[in-house]
Amino acid sequence: MNSNYKTIQNKGKSSNKIDDLVSIEEPLEMIVRYKDNNKWTDDSISITMRTPGNDEDLTIGLLFNESIIEKYSEVEKIEFLGDKVDKYKLQNKIRITLNNKDNLDIKRLKRNFLTNSSCGVCGKTSIDSLEIVCKTKVDKENPKINSSLISKVPDILRKNQSEFLKTGGVHASALLNKDGKLLVIREDVGRHNALDKIIGHSFKNSLFDTNNQFIACSGRLSFELVQKTIMANIGFLMGVGAPTSLAIDLAKRFNITLIGFVKSDSFNIYCGENRILK
Amino acid sequence: MNSNYKTIQNKGKSSNKIDDLVSIEEPLEMIVRYKDNNKWTDDSISITMRTPGNDEDLTIGLLFNESIIEKYSEVEKIEFLGDKVDKYKLQNKIRITLNNKDNLDIKRLKRNFLTNSSCGVCGKTSIDSLEIVCKTKVDKENPKINSSLISKVPDILRKNQSEFLKTGGVHASALLNKDGKLLVIREDVGRHNALDKIIGHSFKNSLFDTNNQFIACSGRLSFELVQKTIMANIGFLMGVGAPTSLAIDLAKRFNITLIGFVKSDSFNIYCGENRILK
Repeated sequence: MNSNYKTIQNKGKSSNKIDDLVSIEEPLEMIVRYKDNNKWTDDSISITMRTPGNDEDLTIGLLFNESIIEKYSEVEKIEFLGDKVDKYKLQNKIRITLNNKDNLDIKRLKRNFLTNSSCGVCGKTSIDSLEIVCKTKVDKENPKINSSLISKVPDILRKNQSEFLKTGGVHASALLNKDGKLLVIREDVGRHNALDKIIGHSFKNSLFDTNNQFIACSGRLSFELVQKTIMANIGFLMGVGAPTSLAIDLAKRFNITLIGFVKSDSFNIYCGENRILK
Repeated sequence: MNSNYKTIQNKGKSSNKIDDLVSIEEPLEMIVRYKDNNKWTDDSISITMRTPGNDEDLTIGLLFNESIIEKYSEVEKIEFLGDKVDKYKLQNKIRITLNNKDNLDIKRLKRNFLTNSSCGVCGKTSIDSLEIVCKTKVDKENPKINSSLISKVPDILRKNQSEFLKTGGVHASALLNKDGKLLVIREDVGRHNALDKIIGHSFKNSLFDTNNQFIACSGRLSFELVQKTIMANIGFLMGVGAPTSLAIDLAKRFNITLIGFVKSDSFNIYCGENRILK
């Protein structure tokens, strides 16, 4: 989603008025409704800056990632709330009603969000032990991905990053299968949002076949992206950019294949070489 | 700060073991100590993923940005806490003791951090009104920056991004004066952290002379970066990447000069052309 802004382009001595397509960034407030002592209760769990679109997937992906929901049937209702106040006539509040979640420990969840800025550590990580409290079912051997396919992924992403082509201002995440078929791609001003949207969409539509799929990202690989990949039980993450130290450390701990700096003629394998077919 | 990782570089049919310098990403827990009903109280206000180094500046910058402190003399003491648990032998907790901050409304502050991921909206923005509750003193006319200097900034940044040159995995923010002198530059896995470090350092060392200075960033320009620039009372922000819609809207509301896609031969002016000298 983008919007046209009148812009002045300066080129040396000359300057021209141009139309510039800009990626939209808007806050989304996520509210969870659940039964607390037999009474329906609304709790605001997060405000995130996102590119509007696929907001249900974003929210479902985040709740799945946070282990708040394990089956999609736990989602009773999804509603958009609030006036359409901004110039895009968007509703910037979403409420997810959960069933079978009586007395949800919302305090824990809120504590998890005591984080700012690209963090996603979200309580699963403490300062003292960066251990993810999750029952990951990442397969130790699969998916097996051909090295020739890996080199083609940046090109597959680029061709399908429709927003990036227009604005130059969004990250992309994609789910692909081991044959290189693009299953779903999402773009967002926040790289973690793009991945949450992928995961929420795949979870909702039962697209996951994790032993035969991998995730690809357009940018740098942070701890958070590896964490979300693990929570989705996928053993293979690649990115066009650089990984961070903690991304590598986490990938090693959970035996995830982590590949960075993917170009058409080379890539770096930081962990999990066993899943790559020569 | 970076660390060496043994990596396998794949180039077509061949693969080689290489040493790869990777940017360090580690969590930092920020704790504020203040007097609550005459009793010293510690409250954890944020956990952020950052590249270690200049952690005091990062924390001070964030507290300044959140209007928790207005003068550096309000900072009584800065301490690093916690065991040096990780492999880098870092302490990942920092505690700032504040004086004259009796009965600090820490609930409000915590609510502000009910955000995840690159947000920084931090309560100053509500869904219903994206108004910054701040007494900004941004000058309407200054700084005046020469357009020929603007085109040189990417080169100035690049030459001083020592970590990026090694790892390819960090963002940079810099404070420069109107003559193009680089006053301070910081690099971090989080772009908002790099800017907080700049602001904290400049605030602590009384470097600000806001009518004659501007901020430059290596990447994309989000709402959060514009917000931090405004809170530092600086009227001029430029970036090598694309701005988001909300970044432009906020810049317009506060009459900030916002420039994106800065290259050696062109740049786009989204707002505040009056501060640019031809």
